Amino acid sequence: MSSEAQQAIAHEQQNPDPPAFVGAEELNSDGTPLSDKQRRKRAEKAEKERVKAEKAARLAQEQATRQAAEVDFAEGNYGVLPMNQSKERVNVQLFSIEDIHPDKDGRQITLQARLQTTRAPSAKLAFITLRQNVHCVQATLAQAPEKVSRQMVKWAASITPESIVRVEGTIAKVPKPIESPSVTIKDAEIKIARIYIEVPVTWEGQIPFYVDDATRSDADIEASQNTPRPLPPIALDTRLDNRVLDLRTPTNQAIFRMSHGVGKLFREFLENNGFIEIHTPKLQGAATESGASVFKLGYFKGEAFLAQSPQLAKQMAIAADFGRVYEIGPVFRAEDSNTHRHMTEFIGLDLEMAFQEHYHEVTDLLNHLFLYIFSELPKRYAAEIAAIKRQYPVEEFLVPRQPVMLDFKEGIQILRDAGCEVEDLDDLSTEMERTLGRLVREKYHTDFYALDKFPLAVRPFYTMPDANDANYSNSYDFFMRGQEILSGAQRVHDAKFLEQRLAGAGIDPSSMKHYVDAFRLGAPPHAGGGIGLERVVMLYLGLGNIRRASMFPRDPKRLEP
Amino acid sequence: MSSEAQQAIAHEQQNPDPPAFVGAEELNSDGTPLSDKQRRKRAEKAEKERVKAEKAARLAQEQATRQAAEVDFAEGNYGVLPMNQSKERVNVQLFSIEDIHPDKDGRQITLQARLQTTRAPSAKLAFITLRQNVHCVQATLAQAPEKVSRQMVKWAASITPESIVRVEGTIAKVPKPIESPSVTIKDAEIKIARIYIEVPVTWEGQIPFYVDDATRSDADIEASQNTPRPLPPIALDTRLDNRVLDLRTPTNQAIFRMSHGVGKLFREFLENNGFIEIHTPKLQGAATESGASVFKLGYFKGEAFLAQSPQLAKQMAIAADFGRVYEIGPVFRAEDSNTHRHMTEFIGLDLEMAFQEHYHEVTDLLNHLFLYIFSELPKRYAAEIAAIKRQYPVEEFLVPRQPVMLDFKEGIQILRDAGCEVEDLDDLSTEMERTLGRLVREKYHTDFYALDKFPLAVRPFYTMPDANDANYSNSYDFFMRGQEILSGAQRVHDAKFLEQRLAGAGIDPSSMKHYVDAFRLGAPPHAGGGIGLERVVMLYLGLGNIRRASMFPRDPKRLEP
Repeated sequence: MSSEAQQAIAHEQQNPDPPAFVGAEELNSDGTPLSDKQRRKRAEKAEKERVKAEKAARLAQEQATRQAAEVDFAEGNYGVLPMNQSKERVNVQLFSIEDIHPDKDGRQITLQARLQTTRAPSAKLAFITLRQNVHCVQATLAQAPEKVSRQMVKWAASITPESIVRVEGTIAKVPKPIESPSVTIKDAEIKIARIYIEVPVTWEGQIPFYVDDATRSDADIEASQNTPRPLPPIALDTRLDNRVLDLRTPTNQAIFRMSHGVGKLFREFLENNGFIEIHTPKLQGAATESGASVFKLGYFKGEAFLAQSPQLAKQMAIAADFGRVYEIGPVFRAEDSNTHRHMTEFIGLDLEMAFQEHYHEVTDLLNHLFLYIFSELPKRYAAEIAAIKRQYPVEEFLVPRQPVMLDFKEGIQILRDAGCEVEDLDDLSTEMERTLGRLVREKYHTDFYALDKFPLAVRPFYTMPDANDANYSNSYDFFMRGQEILSGAQRVHDAKFLEQRLAGAGIDPSSMKHYVDAFRLGAPPHAGGGIGLERVVMLYLGLGNIRRASMFPRDPKRLEP
Repeated sequence: MSSEAQQAIAHEQQNPDPPAFVGAEELNSDGTPLSDKQRRKRAEKAEKERVKAEKAARLAQEQATRQAAEVDFAEGNYGVLPMNQSKERVNVQLFSIEDIHPDKDGRQITLQARLQTTRAPSAKLAFITLRQNVHCVQATLAQAPEKVSRQMVKWAASITPESIVRVEGTIAKVPKPIESPSVTIKDAEIKIARIYIEVPVTWEGQIPFYVDDATRSDADIEASQNTPRPLPPIALDTRLDNRVLDLRTPTNQAIFRMSHGVGKLFREFLENNGFIEIHTPKLQGAATESGASVFKLGYFKGEAFLAQSPQLAKQMAIAADFGRVYEIGPVFRAEDSNTHRHMTEFIGLDLEMAFQEHYHEVTDLLNHLFLYIFSELPKRYAAEIAAIKRQYPVEEFLVPRQPVMLDFKEGIQILRDAGCEVEDLDDLSTEMERTLGRLVREKYHTDFYALDKFPLAVRPFYTMPDANDANYSNSYDFFMRGQEILSGAQRVHDAKFLEQRLAGAGIDPSSMKHYVDAFRLGAPPHAGGGIGLERVVMLYLGLGNIRRASMFPRDPKRLEP
């Protein structure tokens, strides 16, 4: 089936014709009843169509009988393979699509790939697009005496898209570049000698959407709307409901390789700077830490709570003299926030670090951590970033040569200078953050910056107040494209002061005994922060919705797949 | 306070004297009443003691008054520093204990460290042991005119152990190696000029135990029992209740660096072999997968379940064409198992991989993954392994040159040859596994091996049956020192067959719709496995209890700290 035909079908599925009204055939389009002549004419037309259909059916039947009688000389060259149960291991050398090159013209190869689309311009020829991750190649199957039968072409052209096929054939240079935008190998194709279904698609009816349709940008879809073949838009929920299919798009293949890259660079930088990775429990005996809602679960005869962050545990690791620790793990938030940037479960890139004199030792490290990530990503993931940009075009992410860190007060002043009304000690609203991000971008040419010294009252109890002005604190947020991606602070490490702060926040210190005990045993001055992995990926790539940066996202309305 | 005195105190805390009986002073030890003479003698003795105590108190009072009147010329050289609120950043160069060396004799240094113990053989001299992670150095503070006063020595000798101190002083060669087993720098010490408490310990009363006591091996403790200074054994629960203190032992500092290393090597090998890291949700809409109990939680107006493993999600990532994926994350088991090797939350090192022909492509990779980890650990973590062995001595972990993988049937035969009674198709009990581990060690000189081709009936529904004998399956376990550390299999990738297997296991396929849908859309043949990180660490190091390999372990009876 051609890509265009698929699009038409998918489009039709989304825009089905309205159901016919009962008895509509008895009326003219203006609602008046039919005359006798009109009725007679209709009956004659219907009879002609019936005769025509009968004839077509008879011819098709005869042809099928004739074909069935014919010996298919290509019988062994196609078909469905039995389910692979690891019966034998013969070490066939399989070829990768990305290695196909006109230099290898004439080389016989075997490969396993997804069949993305088929198109049969005649009964003698089929074009098949084969896909491996982000790489697509065109394969042709042409009728040939004693090798490729008409039945074989017909069979291959009817394979359900997304089936996994095994193809044996020959690499062939093509005289001019292949035009189809889905095909990534432009200057060579495969001439198919044998084709087998390795794993069939057994979806009942039409599959939910086609991978190449799911790879179009909004601009492409919009531009196509006034053409004879408008592209079907595919809603985010449709994608997420069928996430396995959606994840097969080259865009998503690239997004999750990039996401892996962000985690890898985070680790790389921290390990080069003396951090060790820790794992702290997500099951907690008490629901504390902050006002954010917490998931509660039954725990044998009692109850437990899911950690909203590794905050307390990573601080305890510092009190236990691990010095510099990081953790990559799930974070749970029972907040009924249904926005583009909230999920109930996400991946926290957390770190905590004992410092010698000043928490700016930690903000310096954080700034250089991000500059490292931002400088390495485009070097190591250029192909992925380019693939993603084709579907989600976005302004280039501006990275400053030197870190930009402003005091909260300066941020307020920038907003006021631009005519915004803001209070000195209020937290910034999401809208204000965006505005400030835009103003900072104009002034400092950066999409990445930090705000330091937040008002104490808007931060959690474990935040260290500023030494000179108790209205402020040694705390900071980091932003990408005007949205917060990291929140952190110097923590209160003095047990007696911590108890005061707990009391001030209305929390009974005995409910956090083990946490406070860690400080009674002496903890060095320390600071840290937590980064939302999916937010970094979403904002760097301009994906517009955090769910696109999560393989199987969770929100108040979605627990599956 | 001397290390020995501490031990005596800690020992006393664990073995308090039995409370005196009421009225015991009125009786002889054999229970007969006192005679008048006896009573008179006792009264005289008590009066003498009273007079003596009064005199001692008067003298102490006079001395204190005299001392208070004296000007302390060293006043500025010691004391408690104010809480660090990051007031200033002067970039003092701090020295690391591990860099102290007799070559640097005479060098003036500043360092921050834990004060581990103090000992004052006279009013003029104090020995202080300073600790940074696994490194300990001796520091001496000697009375000196115009520099170190008697008050200063007294104050320093009374600092509570585990306080964080800032010390200024000079490196000094020592004439003969320092004997104390706690001190790791044997050939140099620090002569203290100034000493300040940077962070005090504010624990009420005696701290639960001392870090050096918590570092003794069972053998050391046992050997000391018939000496004048028996070492106090510290129970695992006491350690875990005060885990922050316990984690400060050199042994624990090393264990969690090693644990980090295992994760790092796992990643390194897999990334070099084309795997990408994924993150899958721990919050699930349905409680399925296997018979293991699942934690249930409230989820807004509905309910959710905690993932018992990333099994389903990682398979869906394979159906989504990611090819080779791994995940490091928490795994939750609501099983009321109170054994040395079970926890309710642990870290799973999971991987899943599409293969071309045979699942042995995956077992080959797994075998080489482990051989890589086992060959790199002793190279990169020699110091840590040595430190841990001092507290937990264990037979060397035998690693084979080539992987040892036996068929389940062979395993059964080995057990039978050794006289064990085992059924062909029963699962192995924990006891049988240990026995087999011992027999395999004798025969193949390895503490690491795999069993392949388990009986189908003892494996989960998603396990692929063996192609030739449906009583068996394409599944495997890997063992270390006779205990299972990995379980894995080729999975059923054919949707129709998967539905049959679900029905056979009594699971309604509609309850796992999204999972089955992934296969209806075509998934390549694949296999994988899940490794318990803490088990690998426990068994490699011979820790004897999995809780020792978890920073903050969780079991049915422990949710804190």
